[in-house]
Amino acid sequence: MATKKKLNIGMIGRGFMAKAHSNAFRRVGNFFDLAYEPVLKTVCGTNEAGTKAFADSWGYESVATDWRRVVEDKNIDLVEICVPNNLHAEIAIAAAEAGKMIICEKPLARDAAEALTMTEAVEKAGVLNFVSFNYRRIPAVTLAKKLIDEGKLGKIFHYRANFLQDWTISADVPQGGKDTWRLDAKTAGSGVTGDLLAHCIDIALWQNGPITDINAMTETFVKERKSADTGKVEPVKIDDACTFFCRFANGSMGNFESTRYARGHKALFTFEINGEKASIKWDLHDLHRLQYFDHRDEGIVRGWRSIHVSDGDQPYMSHWWVPGLQIGYEHSFVHQVADFLEAAAKGENARPTFRDAYETSRVCDAILKSATDGQWVSL
Amino acid sequence: MATKKKLNIGMIGRGFMAKAHSNAFRRVGNFFDLAYEPVLKTVCGTNEAGTKAFADSWGYESVATDWRRVVEDKNIDLVEICVPNNLHAEIAIAAAEAGKMIICEKPLARDAAEALTMTEAVEKAGVLNFVSFNYRRIPAVTLAKKLIDEGKLGKIFHYRANFLQDWTISADVPQGGKDTWRLDAKTAGSGVTGDLLAHCIDIALWQNGPITDINAMTETFVKERKSADTGKVEPVKIDDACTFFCRFANGSMGNFESTRYARGHKALFTFEINGEKASIKWDLHDLHRLQYFDHRDEGIVRGWRSIHVSDGDQPYMSHWWVPGLQIGYEHSFVHQVADFLEAAAKGENARPTFRDAYETSRVCDAILKSATDGQWVSL
Amino acid sequence: MATKKKLNIGMIGRGFMAKAHSNAFRRVGNFFDLAYEPVLKTVCGTNEAGTKAFADSWGYESVATDWRRVVEDKNIDLVEICVPNNLHAEIAIAAAEAGKMIICEKPLARDAAEALTMTEAVEKAGVLNFVSFNYRRIPAVTLAKKLIDEGKLGKIFHYRANFLQDWTISADVPQGGKDTWRLDAKTAGSGVTGDLLAHCIDIALWQNGPITDINAMTETFVKERKSADTGKVEPVKIDDACTFFCRFANGSMGNFESTRYARGHKALFTFEINGEKASIKWDLHDLHRLQYFDHRDEGIVRGWRSIHVSDGDQPYMSHWWVPGLQIGYEHSFVHQVADFLEAAAKGENARPTFRDAYETSRVCDAILKSATDGQWVSL
Amino acid sequence: MATKKKLNIGMIGRGFMAKAHSNAFRRVGNFFDLAYEPVLKTVCGTNEAGTKAFADSWGYESVATDWRRVVEDKNIDLVEICVPNNLHAEIAIAAAEAGKMIICEKPLARDAAEALTMTEAVEKAGVLNFVSFNYRRIPAVTLAKKLIDEGKLGKIFHYRANFLQDWTISADVPQGGKDTWRLDAKTAGSGVTGDLLAHCIDIALWQNGPITDINAMTETFVKERKSADTGKVEPVKIDDACTFFCRFANGSMGNFESTRYARGHKALFTFEINGEKASIKWDLHDLHRLQYFDHRDEGIVRGWRSIHVSDGDQPYMSHWWVPGLQIGYEHSFVHQVADFLEAAAKGENARPTFRDAYETSRVCDAILKSATDGQWVSL
Repeated sequence: MATKKKLNIGMIGRGFMAKAHSNAFRRVGNFFDLAYEPVLKTVCGTNEAGTKAFADSWGYESVATDWRRVVEDKNIDLVEICVPNNLHAEIAIAAAEAGKMIICEKPLARDAAEALTMTEAVEKAGVLNFVSFNYRRIPAVTLAKKLIDEGKLGKIFHYRANFLQDWTISADVPQGGKDTWRLDAKTAGSGVTGDLLAHCIDIALWQNGPITDINAMTETFVKERKSADTGKVEPVKIDDACTFFCRFANGSMGNFESTRYARGHKALFTFEINGEKASIKWDLHDLHRLQYFDHRDEGIVRGWRSIHVSDGDQPYMSHWWVPGLQIGYEHSFVHQVADFLEAAAKGENARPTFRDAYETSRVCDAILKSATDGQWVSL
Repeated sequence: MATKKKLNIGMIGRGFMAKAHSNAFRRVGNFFDLAYEPVLKTVCGTNEAGTKAFADSWGYESVATDWRRVVEDKNIDLVEICVPNNLHAEIAIAAAEAGKMIICEKPLARDAAEALTMTEAVEKAGVLNFVSFNYRRIPAVTLAKKLIDEGKLGKIFHYRANFLQDWTISADVPQGGKDTWRLDAKTAGSGVTGDLLAHCIDIALWQNGPITDINAMTETFVKERKSADTGKVEPVKIDDACTFFCRFANGSMGNFESTRYARGHKALFTFEINGEKASIKWDLHDLHRLQYFDHRDEGIVRGWRSIHVSDGDQPYMSHWWVPGLQIGYEHSFVHQVADFLEAAAKGENARPTFRDAYETSRVCDAILKSATDGQWVSL
Repeated sequence: MATKKKLNIGMIGRGFMAKAHSNAFRRVGNFFDLAYEPVLKTVCGTNEAGTKAFADSWGYESVATDWRRVVEDKNIDLVEICVPNNLHAEIAIAAAEAGKMIICEKPLARDAAEALTMTEAVEKAGVLNFVSFNYRRIPAVTLAKKLIDEGKLGKIFHYRANFLQDWTISADVPQGGKDTWRLDAKTAGSGVTGDLLAHCIDIALWQNGPITDINAMTETFVKERKSADTGKVEPVKIDDACTFFCRFANGSMGNFESTRYARGHKALFTFEINGEKASIKWDLHDLHRLQYFDHRDEGIVRGWRSIHVSDGDQPYMSHWWVPGLQIGYEHSFVHQVADFLEAAAKGENARPTFRDAYETSRVCDAILKSATDGQWVSL
Repeated sequence: MATKKKLNIGMIGRGFMAKAHSNAFRRVGNFFDLAYEPVLKTVCGTNEAGTKAFADSWGYESVATDWRRVVEDKNIDLVEICVPNNLHAEIAIAAAEAGKMIICEKPLARDAAEALTMTEAVEKAGVLNFVSFNYRRIPAVTLAKKLIDEGKLGKIFHYRANFLQDWTISADVPQGGKDTWRLDAKTAGSGVTGDLLAHCIDIALWQNGPITDINAMTETFVKERKSADTGKVEPVKIDDACTFFCRFANGSMGNFESTRYARGHKALFTFEINGEKASIKWDLHDLHRLQYFDHRDEGIVRGWRSIHVSDGDQPYMSHWWVPGLQIGYEHSFVHQVADFLEAAAKGENARPTFRDAYETSRVCDAILKSATDGQWVSL
């Protein structure tokens, strides 16, 4: 086995996403044969004790409490940004200027303007950059993309996606703070639009091409919540729920919805694509399956096929176990790290880049503008 | 057994819906103990031979080729209108003036103005009137309504419905004529909005109350089709697909969609309602099941329940077979006839009446206006 | 329309099955164009008032309280036997001797010896005869048979079926009497074996050919129940549950099970057939769907297809509604009457005949003998 | 964070299971806070280059080609046995005599006699011992056990399980050799009985208690296969398929089946348990869901619940991601390692031990004896 080139990672953040990314780096080498060997060099968090514990648990060699130290560290090759959205831009721009490769959690920024600044920074610096829209790399989702690209669906008429959750129904859930910053507009930028619809949009643009026109509505069901930062009851400024329809450049119609008030759905991310010849459906709650209907099948035995995506000839699955044995959520992060490192070894970007994510941000901005103005917005 | 009062029926039309309604009248007395005994007196169609064959098949005592003869016939108690939409108004108004009870196929009319004229006519005449939005009386759908009315869902946040078909994807399907008049705007009034969304809206208004504001888009994928009437290629003026979102008076958000271009779906009518405490889903393709999620269930065993609606304590089912044995599409017509006759015996209207259907027409008009104008429409 | 030949029916029994059969005769002419027109001539029951009410409800012209009167009636062409199992033989033999066509509810008899006497009687008399194993004519089941006959599955390795119910779990359910005679061995012959497994076996023999060897176990969970006849607590002599495995003549293995103690299953009749090239599954609780897996499908999109059996090119469905709209349990009876009458018009038997049902009875006897003796039984 | 005690692991084998176990040791410390820190010390395989590559990939410190070297190594605390079945006994007994903790892949041995020798060896030596029946620790399966133990099901009537695969249908699949030793009776001991039914039995004994009597049949569909060892066509001596029914000590009936000839099923391991009050179903192909039916639910909303086992209050899930995000097959190995290490830290065995697995072997022997003799076998 050839000696691998070490890639030193500086992780900014130690929350849920930092855990998912650290796990991906720890595991990727066991399952993918890559030129790069990722090394968990430094993890950075504001609470030193908690950061130390995270480092011990995941095997980081050192800890930092100031992200600037990580960005400036000559030994760091790749900066991972896993902190709340309001901190993405400053860190990413500094890391770009320091010449680091960057992987940033989604959404790239709080809005498109912020995203554009970041995109221009990485492009100017010429550094490899990537945004963690991890669901592209669920094998069933990747398979869907492959089927579309092969032309199996023919002309597309409809694209539907939604992302439904139910965790903020109680008015007792606070906003702000460490665990509920996603309800605080200052930190998050928006509510379900940036947090959840951004996933749907990233995949939709990738699978179905550009969106040209959007019409949206949003709702904030719980108007006031206690702030975990100030302790006071304050107006809620994020969108609790958002629905929009749109036109794609390829002539198809889109229908999207997201909410955190859909009782019974923990993280129901689904999409369905109807083409002239075939249709596809997918659902994060059973992420290892793809539903496929092919009109070319013989009429009397035509039906939706439930494809158990666990065979070696299906995307990524040859790296894992044997047919019939499913993988889970976290593997999407392993796959994206594998693809990132494989591209990086060739000096190339894996997708989605910051620019790709900026396009998603533009769509998110258009959604929010349309909802505010009550009219169509063109992109 | 007490002697039943005969109710003489005059059926206008001999197509698919006339078959469904005739079947309902033939069967209802075998399964429901009613004061009225429906008698298939006359069926009316323009083609005499075809109408005669229909009469023989279903046991109608006589045939007519002019609907006015039926409406004017002293022996007819109830006029059934099962002809294309453009003929509803004239027949219904004449039947009302003749003092007949009326059951009209949906949509009531081609637009709300026409529907209002009809509604005023039946109300002025004081005749019993009913519109055949049959899906209300699928037992699982009726059960859903019951659960909502009992308060099991609590405050409603989201109402979603769609009606997806795939039968007009081919550009070779003509418009107009006997079998494809639903593609001809002059006859049908609109496309999927009046034909399919009207079902969704009827049930939504019944389950979730009034809609206050609507925003819609429509699309006509195949722009020209040959006319089965003229033999010439003509512009298609109906909506092939329609998506809209809306606000209900109870504060919930609505998301609706219909199309005839969703490959793989023959007649996928679904609705989902998310409440604070519980959620409900239903799907016409498995019409005998209701999906129910109750957040009050113990956490570790909480999940969507797939309820096989076939027990005697569930709506209508005590009239049929035994638990576990499902009924089908046509039974919804039997149920509505049973309810109509039961109410009629008391001199009352079953629901939905013409006025209820007029409200649905108003929503349909608002949808089409919003789609045309590209902006919100208030009701 | 040619004048149809009337076929006068004498119905023996007025219970659940008499209702299903009467409904079938009433409806078949509306949906199938047949040479025969069935006429509901006489219904026979021991309770005169109840029988009169049944006659009124279903339109029988007259009632009888002694089945011999029906059998001897010159005006009766077809005798329908819808009474408890212990009465089948005497009635059928008398009807055969009187030269009547006979349709007998399943199981044909309480055991094979009794079934053989009946079979020999109808064959000697040369009368048309049929046993109501109605599930053969659920469209999805008929489609399964068609796929097997076309060779789509290739060599068969496994045949599995079960019929699970949960209605006798309570020890308070009595045995004997009008509603629970199925728990009384004297009347029923056996428990789940004759009542439920007989359905599984009928279809298995039809789809997969003869069974050569059987090994079975049975269980009676509730050992004593009150008799609805005597009012006394008496030992339960039927099989509450039965499992068997077997070999088919074609080399495949069979695995069958039935019980009335499977909490959560009302009438879960399922079968699954695994062949070299394809597999099939079906489930009575969703009787309008067939599951089909074809190994010849392209690998990456291979999966179980959920076929919504509602299209005009699928068995029987062209007679009903339109694609996507499901039919139910009772339609299987309409289909078997249609097939019976169509064959009868040619002087032929539809299947299964008494002899076919005798073969099923032989398998049931072998099951019970194997369970008693604790060893394999060859057929 | 307290310093953890290192536990040095010697892995015998470098195949599929060695990969699953190595992954578990690598990951467990990131997700579970344990007193022990597992150290991948040595991996042993007969092919030195391949073993070296495996060691590099997984981070083993050294390699060996003779398992005796590992067993005798003073630095090794725990011996992991991940080699074909015929090698288990000799290695396990030597490891026991050397005082090592042992984790052995399932089945423990080729037959019960061999399993007993191993069990006596570990018990005599007093070493911690464990057999890798990993499916016990799929969270949904563990939850099922918890529900049974809480009494939610009440008295059990039926226990059903099967394990269906389709990978040996082609007669071109060889027997013996590195990849297909599971088809060679000398190496594997038996076919589906030891390989697949052993999983079903392990879980059944754990969930439902002892089996007292068994009746089985087996089949070998492909009678001869080329040997990957000798290159010659030789008789196949394993069971390709096996069905058995049984009685449990608690009075319930069991029905089990396994095959490698069930087209369409890659690894369909399912169980279903029917109790007086509730029932449970599970399926490895959707391993993150548990189906639960509770008869105590209100009648009109009673149905099978599909529980998405991904919440923090469900077994093991608090260690992973957030509700709605599923884990996969491999996590069962992480959980068993966590439980093993937690028990080991207290000097205790986790379950199943060698003795537990010996009980499973006794059942497997009884199955095969019953199939050979064609009669019931008591345990």
